[in-house]
Amino acid sequence: MMPNRREFIDTLNAFCPGDDTWLPGGDGPLSGLTFASKDIFDVAGKVTGAGNPTWQATHSPAEAHAWVVQQLVDAGAELAGKTITDELTRGIFGENVHYGTPTNPRAAGRAPGGSSSGSAAAVAGELVDFALGSDTGGSVRVPASFCGLYGLRPTHGRIPRGGMLLQAPSYDTIGWFARDAITFQRVGHVLLNSSGDSVLPTQLIVAEDAFALAEPETREALAAATDRISSLFEAVSEVRLSPSSLTDWSNQQQILQSREAWESVREWIDRYNPAFSFEVSDRYVLARGVTDAQVAAAQLRREDIVARVNEVFAGGNKVVCLPTTISPAPPTGQAVSQRHELRLRNSALTSIAGNTGRPQISLPLAEVDGLPVGLSLLGDKGTDEALMALAAKIAEGKEERAGQANC
Amino acid sequence: MMPNRREFIDTLNAFCPGDDTWLPGGDGPLSGLTFASKDIFDVAGKVTGAGNPTWQATHSPAEAHAWVVQQLVDAGAELAGKTITDELTRGIFGENVHYGTPTNPRAAGRAPGGSSSGSAAAVAGELVDFALGSDTGGSVRVPASFCGLYGLRPTHGRIPRGGMLLQAPSYDTIGWFARDAITFQRVGHVLLNSSGDSVLPTQLIVAEDAFALAEPETREALAAATDRISSLFEAVSEVRLSPSSLTDWSNQQQILQSREAWESVREWIDRYNPAFSFEVSDRYVLARGVTDAQVAAAQLRREDIVARVNEVFAGGNKVVCLPTTISPAPPTGQAVSQRHELRLRNSALTSIAGNTGRPQISLPLAEVDGLPVGLSLLGDKGTDEALMALAAKIAEGKEERAGQANC
Repeated sequence: MMPNRREFIDTLNAFCPGDDTWLPGGDGPLSGLTFASKDIFDVAGKVTGAGNPTWQATHSPAEAHAWVVQQLVDAGAELAGKTITDELTRGIFGENVHYGTPTNPRAAGRAPGGSSSGSAAAVAGELVDFALGSDTGGSVRVPASFCGLYGLRPTHGRIPRGGMLLQAPSYDTIGWFARDAITFQRVGHVLLNSSGDSVLPTQLIVAEDAFALAEPETREALAAATDRISSLFEAVSEVRLSPSSLTDWSNQQQILQSREAWESVREWIDRYNPAFSFEVSDRYVLARGVTDAQVAAAQLRREDIVARVNEVFAGGNKVVCLPTTISPAPPTGQAVSQRHELRLRNSALTSIAGNTGRPQISLPLAEVDGLPVGLSLLGDKGTDEALMALAAKIAEGKEERAGQANC
Repeated sequence: MMPNRREFIDTLNAFCPGDDTWLPGGDGPLSGLTFASKDIFDVAGKVTGAGNPTWQATHSPAEAHAWVVQQLVDAGAELAGKTITDELTRGIFGENVHYGTPTNPRAAGRAPGGSSSGSAAAVAGELVDFALGSDTGGSVRVPASFCGLYGLRPTHGRIPRGGMLLQAPSYDTIGWFARDAITFQRVGHVLLNSSGDSVLPTQLIVAEDAFALAEPETREALAAATDRISSLFEAVSEVRLSPSSLTDWSNQQQILQSREAWESVREWIDRYNPAFSFEVSDRYVLARGVTDAQVAAAQLRREDIVARVNEVFAGGNKVVCLPTTISPAPPTGQAVSQRHELRLRNSALTSIAGNTGRPQISLPLAEVDGLPVGLSLLGDKGTDEALMALAAKIAEGKEERAGQANC
């Protein structure tokens, strides 16, 4: 049986250089689908490279497949290869100084989003049907938004992380991308090990302060998308999520995530003095400097945030609607300082789900000047299936409207 | 005329990967000598790579030769190629994560010293007769000590720096290496533009606190070497250089050098997000955080240090004797944290000349367990020629003693 991934030429720079990973598909619910896997998930016999040449050079081939890879292959999907990631998943723009930036097929000259950059590029560029990513601080949601894809950050702890490179365990989740809601849902049922039955949310809550963070044109485009989907709900209301500011919430995540990320790799960094981009080293040096007192304060703050968001969700079957990113994909090759600011601004949106462990799905429902940008739905813990079902229902409505427009 | 550097195979990894730099020698005082040049000195038509692939990729070929390169070629020396350096000259051990570590031909499995690593390796391995380096915080003296070579950090400002990559201008100097004192002096007369006449120092001052920093076996070996050369002086005495501690002096250099180094490259780093080793980024992040208040205090402290060392040299024709490094070359591949500590300990020795702008020559006069370690002579400003002459006189005495021993 010949690997079919060799039939395409990866002009998008989505796959890892020199990668020849391939696993055949078989019989199962995902038969006939091909997928790509972010190079942080083990594939037996291959070194998991994590987007960094020093990591690649200092690790042995994996002995077994990651749980998610095994699950997908067992369900009949064919693994087409491993994709480029930001170094050790540190980044949300997808510009890897060692392996280059995967092309954003939907936005020429712009970042694909990261850290699951190659996975998003491979799906958006139709090299595969779906792809695995991970999301710690936005690494599935951001590329989904920038590349015009469906992408889910599941409930924290919902999908087993065996055989996956962890960054910050209390934030790390496994997610995936697809171009259409139905494929997205098929994959989700396998990864979430669920039948697909779910109660759809009936109340839509628009997060005012999250919308306020978006750039004006993005805010408008996403507000219009929100209007279009509002008919699917019994009630629509507005809320201000944070009594202080969402930026304050993301600063808090920054502290905890940094500490956990540093603990994950400090010994390896000390041992191997890895070649990193300046930007990535900068974040690790910052992380090294985080004090125990800062961590303790941030931990308490996280409890406040969880309590506040629980309050918003209390008393009903609700979803919170917010922009996935503050804007469509920015141009590639921006200065480190510009990218740093942009990352902080986007993190104010992504840290809501991050801090609370709630599932968030990004839907490709808007464009600004022809560039995709995602609308997100944040759900209650464990309602991942409902978010997927909602996505499918919205897509159906969209097709119906498109059908009507064509009449 | 065929380039003769192609006659050797660079098994030492001393030259830059893929380098084909070559300039013919001609008629002059250095006719018949070949040299190598650290890849921070411009050679017309070639990109100056500075030991970093991002630097290499973001710079154009040089339009003219660096002043020193031109001077040497005009004097008849043949340029055999460009040598590996620590990234942007940041480092004193010579372990470059991108291009590998040049071999120390005198100490198997041990660091060549840096940042002029390839130049020292090329000379010690007899690939060339002499080589250019630079010394900001020890980058000529340390590899001279580790590779058993003659190496000079000249009086600051003595040799023109046109066409050279600067790191920290108030500390940067150009130096060179040779295996024997006579070749070393021939090159020096060209680079220093001098006739060679000089008055030899008559008083040897042993820097107690500098010797106290060396590891016990190194201290013993260098004390014995000091005894052997003491007969060349009319008087020998001891002094404690720093009323506080030499480590305090090097902390002060760390602040000023860091600030200057950051100013030299901050815009380039922001623009290109270069791939650096973690260690190098770490130093730049530290440098970015140095405050104006720290700089002002360190500037005042530097004046104190200069005044104190002037006091030691007052009233006579003196040289101060000290260990070049605290030990012979350490093993390669140490942990970042170990190397960091070792760098700080060595900097306490190298910052004496650095802070005061005085010339310091390292002489290959001792060994510990078969590994070379250098004895240094620190001179008055502008007495570079006298230090070279002293080196030649000491070498002559050594040969005479060796001759006698053979009778």
